[in-house]
Amino acid sequence: MGSFRADCQYCTRDQRLQEVLLEVCRLDVSTLYLCREQTYRGRAVVALNAHETELFTLDDDALCRFTREVTRAARAIRDVTRADKINYAIYGDLVSHLHYHLAPKHRGGPGWGQPFTLQPDPPRHLSAEDFGRLADAIRADLG
Amino acid sequence: MGSFRADCQYCTRDQRLQEVLLEVCRLDVSTLYLCREQTYRGRAVVALNAHETELFTLDDDALCRFTREVTRAARAIRDVTRADKINYAIYGDLVSHLHYHLAPKHRGGPGWGQPFTLQPDPPRHLSAEDFGRLADAIRADLG
Repeated sequence: MGSFRADCQYCTRDQRLQEVLLEVCRLDVSTLYLCREQTYRGRAVVALNAHETELFTLDDDALCRFTREVTRAARAIRDVTRADKINYAIYGDLVSHLHYHLAPKHRGGPGWGQPFTLQPDPPRHLSAEDFGRLADAIRADLG
Repeated sequence: MGSFRADCQYCTRDQRLQEVLLEVCRLDVSTLYLCREQTYRGRAVVALNAHETELFTLDDDALCRFTREVTRAARAIRDVTRADKINYAIYGDLVSHLHYHLAPKHRGGPGWGQPFTLQPDPPRHLSAEDFGRLADAIRADLG
């Protein structure tokens, strides 16, 4: 399933990726990251480990495994953040390597009732300590 | 799996739903609709037939079946529209019944490189004939 692309930030996990994402843990066919931008506390990305660009290029086994892992991550984020709703999205027009955005939303919180914003202005960053605690809590919930 | 909610437009398939969506076909655990707003030609919704609100409330069988059907619909829309990328999203802060938005995107077309817009201004509507042909083509591709 999929090949490695030397020009893809999700394949190389290079500096471009590390500037915006922190790895929380590697799952079986995907990797869970927290976004450094935390307007939606717990906002995360689950990226497939292989370079594929559409859900329909995955075989059935990979599709189900990827979906299970995204779903498992969403539940952990909901548990930790007590979000009222998780938003899930695959866009990827420009960075096409399959990755789900997960954005926890709270009633009365940022962007409730509207699609989450990829680059909120101004961005919100947590302290290193708070960010680390959030990653630890999600990792612990995943078990 | 899930219960019927008399106040939910995806459960009742009532006038609120019919004003914005046209049913293309019922799949096994979900229903494929075309959006009447067609800025992104082929834009569609795949709604779970049962009233569930998060992917993680589905059991494993339902999760995989729903994902397969969303993926099958995405492929058909790609085939018919020759889109360069499909965008997939579940939001649902306000209308929480599980439904994926599918937005076909073209390089150089509306919103390329940005998340698709739920309510483009001005909206774009097709003629009844063109809209019907589009639904027929997607239905035929689904086989």
